[in-house]
Amino acid sequence: VIPAEIIKKKRNRFELSSEELAFMVNGYTSGQLPDYQMSALLMATFFSGMSEVETSALTQIMLDSGQRVQFEDSGKVVDKHSTGGVGDKTSLILAPLLAACGLKVPMMSGRGLGHTGGTVDKLESIPGFRTDLSLADFKKQVDEIGCAMVSQTGEICPADKKIYGLRDVTATVESLPLICASIMSKKIAEGIGGLVLDVKYGSGAFMKTEDNAKSLAAGLTRVGEDHGLKVKFLITNMDQPLGAFVGNLVEVAECLAIMTGDDCLGAEEQSFNDCKELTIELATQMIQVSDLAMEETEARKKVIAALDSGQAFETFAKMCHLQGGNLGAIQLPTAFSTVVAESSGYIESYNTEQIGIAAIELGAGRKTLNDKINPLTGLRVHKKVGDLVEAGEPLFTLFAGKEVPEATQAKALINQSVAYSEAPIATTPLVLFRE
Amino acid sequence: VIPAEIIKKKRNRFELSSEELAFMVNGYTSGQLPDYQMSALLMATFFSGMSEVETSALTQIMLDSGQRVQFEDSGKVVDKHSTGGVGDKTSLILAPLLAACGLKVPMMSGRGLGHTGGTVDKLESIPGFRTDLSLADFKKQVDEIGCAMVSQTGEICPADKKIYGLRDVTATVESLPLICASIMSKKIAEGIGGLVLDVKYGSGAFMKTEDNAKSLAAGLTRVGEDHGLKVKFLITNMDQPLGAFVGNLVEVAECLAIMTGDDCLGAEEQSFNDCKELTIELATQMIQVSDLAMEETEARKKVIAALDSGQAFETFAKMCHLQGGNLGAIQLPTAFSTVVAESSGYIESYNTEQIGIAAIELGAGRKTLNDKINPLTGLRVHKKVGDLVEAGEPLFTLFAGKEVPEATQAKALINQSVAYSEAPIATTPLVLFRE
Repeated sequence: VIPAEIIKKKRNRFELSSEELAFMVNGYTSGQLPDYQMSALLMATFFSGMSEVETSALTQIMLDSGQRVQFEDSGKVVDKHSTGGVGDKTSLILAPLLAACGLKVPMMSGRGLGHTGGTVDKLESIPGFRTDLSLADFKKQVDEIGCAMVSQTGEICPADKKIYGLRDVTATVESLPLICASIMSKKIAEGIGGLVLDVKYGSGAFMKTEDNAKSLAAGLTRVGEDHGLKVKFLITNMDQPLGAFVGNLVEVAECLAIMTGDDCLGAEEQSFNDCKELTIELATQMIQVSDLAMEETEARKKVIAALDSGQAFETFAKMCHLQGGNLGAIQLPTAFSTVVAESSGYIESYNTEQIGIAAIELGAGRKTLNDKINPLTGLRVHKKVGDLVEAGEPLFTLFAGKEVPEATQAKALINQSVAYSEAPIATTPLVLFRE
Repeated sequence: VIPAEIIKKKRNRFELSSEELAFMVNGYTSGQLPDYQMSALLMATFFSGMSEVETSALTQIMLDSGQRVQFEDSGKVVDKHSTGGVGDKTSLILAPLLAACGLKVPMMSGRGLGHTGGTVDKLESIPGFRTDLSLADFKKQVDEIGCAMVSQTGEICPADKKIYGLRDVTATVESLPLICASIMSKKIAEGIGGLVLDVKYGSGAFMKTEDNAKSLAAGLTRVGEDHGLKVKFLITNMDQPLGAFVGNLVEVAECLAIMTGDDCLGAEEQSFNDCKELTIELATQMIQVSDLAMEETEARKKVIAALDSGQAFETFAKMCHLQGGNLGAIQLPTAFSTVVAESSGYIESYNTEQIGIAAIELGAGRKTLNDKINPLTGLRVHKKVGDLVEAGEPLFTLFAGKEVPEATQAKALINQSVAYSEAPIATTPLVLFRE
């Protein structure tokens, strides 16, 4: 087998066989295939695409490169995957919530990527919280309390890990089949029977249009179904931050508030409504992809009960305790600055990606791979698109620990991200489409 | 500057600045840019292409990566470049022929590539002939006798050399702008003022169609003109081997025969007519791109005179002598097998690439980079497309040294390469287009 011939075949838009894909991927993972040939294949794939059969084969090869968790009752084991957004914190509630509903959620998550936050970074803002459980401890905890939330271990899909690193530095991240295989191999490796996808579109998402989001959702669904998963997806709007807070500890605080019914850093319950509603919607679908035979209305009731009764919070607290986290040691950050409305009028739109970048400027995310994040920094978003504001009214509050960071650049970005309208604005529904 | 951003820009079909191209190419040449990023850029270029401005900038960067020969009278310094074919041996005659016409030809050539032969391999089949002159000796010889024929030295376009090696193993050879920059940087580095391109199309060429050949010719011409060269091109037919012989020493012998008017290995002068005619045509154009102010008819007369008077041969003999070659020591190979016509009829077509591959099977070329060629093997093509043949009549004679190689595979390939027609065949002109 000549690697250049396989690259050429893909370059010329032919379908690669499972054997050819395995030759390249396994060769690269083991170090036998040089990285320059893998990067050429990745770029050829970016342009030529992959068929459904190829994408599923690639997923399988990545899956087979590492270990796979196995649950006896996989019909009760579910997860959710979000394509990432700003203020997107539903995972933190969903895992304990579904556990409280009698399902198992073995959730492996990532760190912040680009302008979006990452579940692992958020969890690690809780003093002591460990996300680096071994695969055995991970499974044990899921069997015990119904959920665990960890970062991806080296035992899971090492091929994907190595290839993803290469994609990142060769401008080959944005390829639908590569994205699908990367996401799905890791999810399938969790040992789940059902998966709900939260595919986001809009100014704060990676997919800027609804059509792109739908293509991604369809691709991910096909791969999941090819591997025997029950899959449902929501197409949801990310034209503004989800909920009231963007950051790490401030997002944890918002989740705790949603699970307990309390206020959070001066924000009242209703400011989290969108986040709570989306969480309930996703949880309802997660029950639908499990083998709990339950009508949607019934499932939704069960979810709301588990959330409002405090059971979800209880499970979250248990999980924190088992993973070394100390909720009592949380010291909430303090407000150190505000960005006020420059004009009176209706909020017409946010450049949500720019708000995410502003949060990174504040230290809530990484500019380069080795940056340390500051778990205490973040911001509150006071207004939703369509809200009426008066010039001078606070739009954003900036939070940090005792040492207040320089925030000139972040404030400028935030200021520029807002557009005002004199006339009322027709708002977009949060959940655009479900299947 | 972030390399991945430059790759992404090209991937997204934007034009790269000269600075961005230089950052990538020079970084790669010096070893600072990893090869996996260069290969991703090359594949992105394969798909996104390059503008004329980018292609010229890339050529300049490659040119600047090494040394450049300089002649005081560059208006008299010309060269020819052929895109490669089977039996394409005109270079061996052209260099001494144009020198005999008062011009200078500093010709740097390559070895066999794919199914096509290489000028350097052919020259090296002459006992003692050295193609590895230093740049200083190369220039000195051109100044002295009007021509020198060498292989590319490491001093010329090292960036191209390194990138070409990477293209070869990453399926990124077949990119028009990359081909143009690679060819033209090396030609411009020779210090020439004029260049004639012999762009071949057909079953034995890299470009299978006339349209592709014209695109390549136009691309090469633009880059040459951007760098101040006078450029003319011919689009020539490569649907059958050029001349009567394919190999190395047998092709040298054919050239000697053309320059002396003798027969060659049993083949009479008329069997080289197409090769001789193309050589005269190319030589005429080479005079046109020099600053010898001469009408085409006059130039053609001068060329024919230099060829038929033996002056071209005399210069060839001088060049051989200066480069260590001993024409007197040539021992011509002997015929060891023939392939006869399987049917009676007109030769309808040859799969000329397959004939080239058969010659490689015989040892006349390399299957892998480190193979040694056998200078003595080769074949004679008895019939041209359109010729009437009778079943059993010899179509090809196979030549070798004393040790006769196993030729079953080569003979099978040759046999399969011929198609017969009952009706007469309308033949294609050798020179299809000139500009």
